[in-house]
Amino acid sequence: MPSPILERQQKLSQILIDNHLDALALNPGPNLVHLTGLNFHLMERPTVAFFRPEAAPLLILPELEQGKLAQLPFELQPFPYTEDRATWPQAFRRAVDTGGLRAKRVGIIPNRLRVLELRFLEEAAPQATFVPAEEVAAALRMRKDPQEIEHMRQAAHIAQEALEATLSQFKIGITEREFAAELTTQLLRHGSDPHLPFSPIVASGPHSANPHATPTARTITEGDLLLVDWGANVEGYFSDITRTFAVGDVGDSLREIAGIVKEANAAGRAAARAGTPAGEVDQAARTVISRAGYGEHFIHRTGHGLGREAHEEPYIAAGSDQILEVGMTFTIEPGIYLPRVGSVRGGGVRIEDDVVITPEGCESLTDLPREMRRCDVETPRRDVSTSPPKGR
Amino acid sequence: MPSPILERQQKLSQILIDNHLDALALNPGPNLVHLTGLNFHLMERPTVAFFRPEAAPLLILPELEQGKLAQLPFELQPFPYTEDRATWPQAFRRAVDTGGLRAKRVGIIPNRLRVLELRFLEEAAPQATFVPAEEVAAALRMRKDPQEIEHMRQAAHIAQEALEATLSQFKIGITEREFAAELTTQLLRHGSDPHLPFSPIVASGPHSANPHATPTARTITEGDLLLVDWGANVEGYFSDITRTFAVGDVGDSLREIAGIVKEANAAGRAAARAGTPAGEVDQAARTVISRAGYGEHFIHRTGHGLGREAHEEPYIAAGSDQILEVGMTFTIEPGIYLPRVGSVRGGGVRIEDDVVITPEGCESLTDLPREMRRCDVETPRRDVSTSPPKGR
Repeated sequence: MPSPILERQQKLSQILIDNHLDALALNPGPNLVHLTGLNFHLMERPTVAFFRPEAAPLLILPELEQGKLAQLPFELQPFPYTEDRATWPQAFRRAVDTGGLRAKRVGIIPNRLRVLELRFLEEAAPQATFVPAEEVAAALRMRKDPQEIEHMRQAAHIAQEALEATLSQFKIGITEREFAAELTTQLLRHGSDPHLPFSPIVASGPHSANPHATPTARTITEGDLLLVDWGANVEGYFSDITRTFAVGDVGDSLREIAGIVKEANAAGRAAARAGTPAGEVDQAARTVISRAGYGEHFIHRTGHGLGREAHEEPYIAAGSDQILEVGMTFTIEPGIYLPRVGSVRGGGVRIEDDVVITPEGCESLTDLPREMRRCDVETPRRDVSTSPPKGR
Repeated sequence: MPSPILERQQKLSQILIDNHLDALALNPGPNLVHLTGLNFHLMERPTVAFFRPEAAPLLILPELEQGKLAQLPFELQPFPYTEDRATWPQAFRRAVDTGGLRAKRVGIIPNRLRVLELRFLEEAAPQATFVPAEEVAAALRMRKDPQEIEHMRQAAHIAQEALEATLSQFKIGITEREFAAELTTQLLRHGSDPHLPFSPIVASGPHSANPHATPTARTITEGDLLLVDWGANVEGYFSDITRTFAVGDVGDSLREIAGIVKEANAAGRAAARAGTPAGEVDQAARTVISRAGYGEHFIHRTGHGLGREAHEEPYIAAGSDQILEVGMTFTIEPGIYLPRVGSVRGGGVRIEDDVVITPEGCESLTDLPREMRRCDVETPRRDVSTSPPKGR
């Protein structure tokens, strides 16, 4: 069986040539893992790899990380430095010279590379041009292969099972943080890698109106909306799901927005298919919410790519002309967020699924019920209308 | 009670003046949390705060994060942008103009700030100078106050209890990953914040010779060394501990290096006191290992600062003239890492404690036994020679 690592490096060679880049410089993170299988801590010591078309990668790294290079399934040239900081620029210079990169076009990933690494690169190759190359990472990783999709399917399954286990123990009166800690424990117990995609968001009552809330010591109370946004990690591939629950009776207006968001989610999933621009998926979901009169309260894009990163290409945003292709994986997550106005209770609802574009259309890897369930009473775990119980 | 946030912002004002900086630009991370209490995801959307002497902070952020700014205990001027990327440079420009920063000296933290944010800053303030300002963050956070030390003490306690709970279930034949997952679960169950300082390192047999190993599917086997490096998070403050265990009988040579590392750890702790340069602590630990003939196998510095970051100032490294002061918190973690040579089994031993400089000397927040315990049999949880059982 050919190594996926080698196939990915070969694919990158062609992408670099197509993008007129002499090299790609990567620090630790998802792109480096994808291309080498190597995990490094992202800390105060710089680690940078150069990938060039049809050439072995070069890797500048702390000497104490060299143990990770044993038994690599591909050729790699290491440039180790010691704990003496005077040796760090030398290692960068030697790698740049070996790669013939002194005055070349070198791609970088701006939302990953730090100023720390950039300054060492600039010092070692003052005539080189360092150009943003997000499109290289996107072209390399946006279309998942069957093995990657299987990891994501498993990550979705684990996340869903972990949530159900957490809900089965739920009691009104626990805090957001207690809910988040139990959910995290259940994620690990159900088999997620301990390195979660992100810390779960557990936002109750008025906090649910904040799309990126952090769990607090607030007590989850009768009448709250409870928004939970969580995910699992399987072999470095993520799930990222949101469901919003009713804690007791939340009243008609919040129930109404939950119904609208459910419709918007369905419209987005129905619009997602190969050949369609990502912007049309956003528009399909957004139109449902706008027509219902809540357009100004849907304050974010409809979704984002998902895979080795919690947010990656393709972004499902207004106006995006990114054409969806088979194998692309992303979230569809419309929401409505209502601030408190006078005596009218505020709150937010988001319903987030993880989908993959298939030859037939769009498959959701997540299948928890999308109607707003009450979390303080037992409710069916799957939508019985789509999965009726069978007789013998 | 004065808000610690306001006190920290006032302290920063003076540090900026002392360092001849007109502002400090921060992206999401420990410095921003320290100064504002604000947590943001570090993703593809840039978030940057400017802090100026004696002026309210300015914050460029995505509109959908604005909910986090409700009820801040200090004044702050927000510059929100929308999901339309054309609005992003405008938000940066307005903040720069409001702050009068177009041609000023602005400090940045190179191992935190990404090229993403740097490019927006450079575009908004092309005449400004962006200078590395690690020393500002160090001056702000290096000396912990009693409340911070109490959080770290609690984080050490939780980590120790979680390890003991994990060991009590240990069986030869589980994998490194299974051990790591159980340890992570126990960290949460014992009260760590779900956002751990780092994913635990669980390195068995030859893997223990790699200081920064990632847990694998390798089965933990009779005769292995088992190196565990883990930590907990309490209110954003970390612990970071390492102990190395014997799985069954590991032989005399590995037992010997365990004894040497224990001596080196004790020598480092004994050398650490206010007024001493950090380099002398490194030297004290290193001398023990060098004299025993293993100097070339102690391939990293003796320790690093610890607090809101797993690695921060002060670094306990060879030649460092950083003077230790009361309230500084850092690790002391000598190690010896032996590669496999012919039929001689390889392996590594590290013993890592978290210490705080006190008026009296150096207090260790961690007190698990430092001699090499066997993890496959019951062993005492504390060193009985220092805590003898008392009669009634």
